[in-house]
Amino acid sequence: MGRVVFIGAGPGAADLITVRGARLLTQAGAVLYDALTDPALRELAPNAHWVHVGKRGYRDDSTGQAMINTLLEQHAREHALVVRLKGGDPSVFARLEEELAAMAQAGIACEVVPGITAAAAAAADTLRPLTRRGGGRTVSFATAMTRTGRPRASRSADTEVFYMAGRQLEALSHQLLAAGWPANTPVSLVSRAGWPDMAQSDHTVKSLQQAGSLHADRPTIAIVGAAAQSSSTASATGASETDPVL
Amino acid sequence: MGRVVFIGAGPGAADLITVRGARLLTQAGAVLYDALTDPALRELAPNAHWVHVGKRGYRDDSTGQAMINTLLEQHAREHALVVRLKGGDPSVFARLEEELAAMAQAGIACEVVPGITAAAAAAADTLRPLTRRGGGRTVSFATAMTRTGRPRASRSADTEVFYMAGRQLEALSHQLLAAGWPANTPVSLVSRAGWPDMAQSDHTVKSLQQAGSLHADRPTIAIVGAAAQSSSTASATGASETDPVL
Repeated sequence: MGRVVFIGAGPGAADLITVRGARLLTQAGAVLYDALTDPALRELAPNAHWVHVGKRGYRDDSTGQAMINTLLEQHAREHALVVRLKGGDPSVFARLEEELAAMAQAGIACEVVPGITAAAAAAADTLRPLTRRGGGRTVSFATAMTRTGRPRASRSADTEVFYMAGRQLEALSHQLLAAGWPANTPVSLVSRAGWPDMAQSDHTVKSLQQAGSLHADRPTIAIVGAAAQSSSTASATGASETDPVL
Repeated sequence: MGRVVFIGAGPGAADLITVRGARLLTQAGAVLYDALTDPALRELAPNAHWVHVGKRGYRDDSTGQAMINTLLEQHAREHALVVRLKGGDPSVFARLEEELAAMAQAGIACEVVPGITAAAAAAADTLRPLTRRGGGRTVSFATAMTRTGRPRASRSADTEVFYMAGRQLEALSHQLLAAGWPANTPVSLVSRAGWPDMAQSDHTVKSLQQAGSLHADRPTIAIVGAAAQSSSTASATGASETDPVL
């Protein structure tokens, strides 16, 4: 029986994978990968079996989790090293727990190689750090895509990052207002973080309701609060009082 | 005038840097690095000027931020590419904003290459994802090291990760209890995440007060709540009621 290594591919361009991840990929007999992974990564393992198991959100055409678990098991019987390549970081919104549990039940040894999560790539691409001195000392990650279709927003961390926010911007705005965020709190939308065609736009919690089509059909995260400000406009003590230009 | 690229080295072993970061490092004329960076990274740029500007916490012997900014400027005048190598991810608790602002003021072009943050490495090393279905849908990052010496704890995300927690465990326990976390909430301490000698121990919010010497003098993060549970013991609905064994 082979082992399964879960590798974070990072959120975008192939060279955001770690050196360790890239090296293990070259040794893989089979690679089960998601839709969001850069095809250029295939060049690292041209002779491996590449199996597409992509799923995004809760669409009906998604390959089910049970099927992915079964495929991992099957390939682990045939190959010494199976790579489960996940977009971003396997430990953040990637359903890693379910796959680890299935492998444990099947007696298959696992390893996890971390990856760059979308929030870190967005911060790097836009030169807007996730934590700041003064008013930006905490950051939280949540997903705007839930089974109920309603994002759950709070106001506790100085910055809140919402993954998979593209289709939920209006609902997210309402939830943020309900959670007590002031209407003029800055929001930075970043789509395709980590890719050469990354795009960013500035909003407020209130104006987010009209931002719907700007990043259509692109994986989008919403950064709310202190870290949404550009470094040059951020003050040392907290959020600015002026609304960013949309 | 050269440009400055801020690169996240990851939290531990040299092969946790990204492929992009490794490639840029080979092109650097000068590298300003922190104490926590793996010395093995020097092999990627043996002919560059390596300048140690490490600082940890708020110790008196730290090189000041103003000195780092000045050194970055000086080296950018001499080299086409200066790398500012930071442990972990430059956008998370790395004072990136101050250095970006100084470079902007000096008219020096900047780029940021993201890195693996300690929380992601700890999750990978321990096979305990930061987000889980059900009770672990949000995760927040905070630092336990503050200028006042008092960590600021809240209870809002399902999982809260405290960086630089090693010297603050007793204070952190009290803060977590005061913030409303039940005394038997699981806490996973992970030191030297991302290194071959990573160590992990299980506690509760209450028992954290007696954990002081276990990870002494090793960079330590505390993972509190849903993601502190091992995958095999985590239920789909939330925290277990039994205390982990210390």
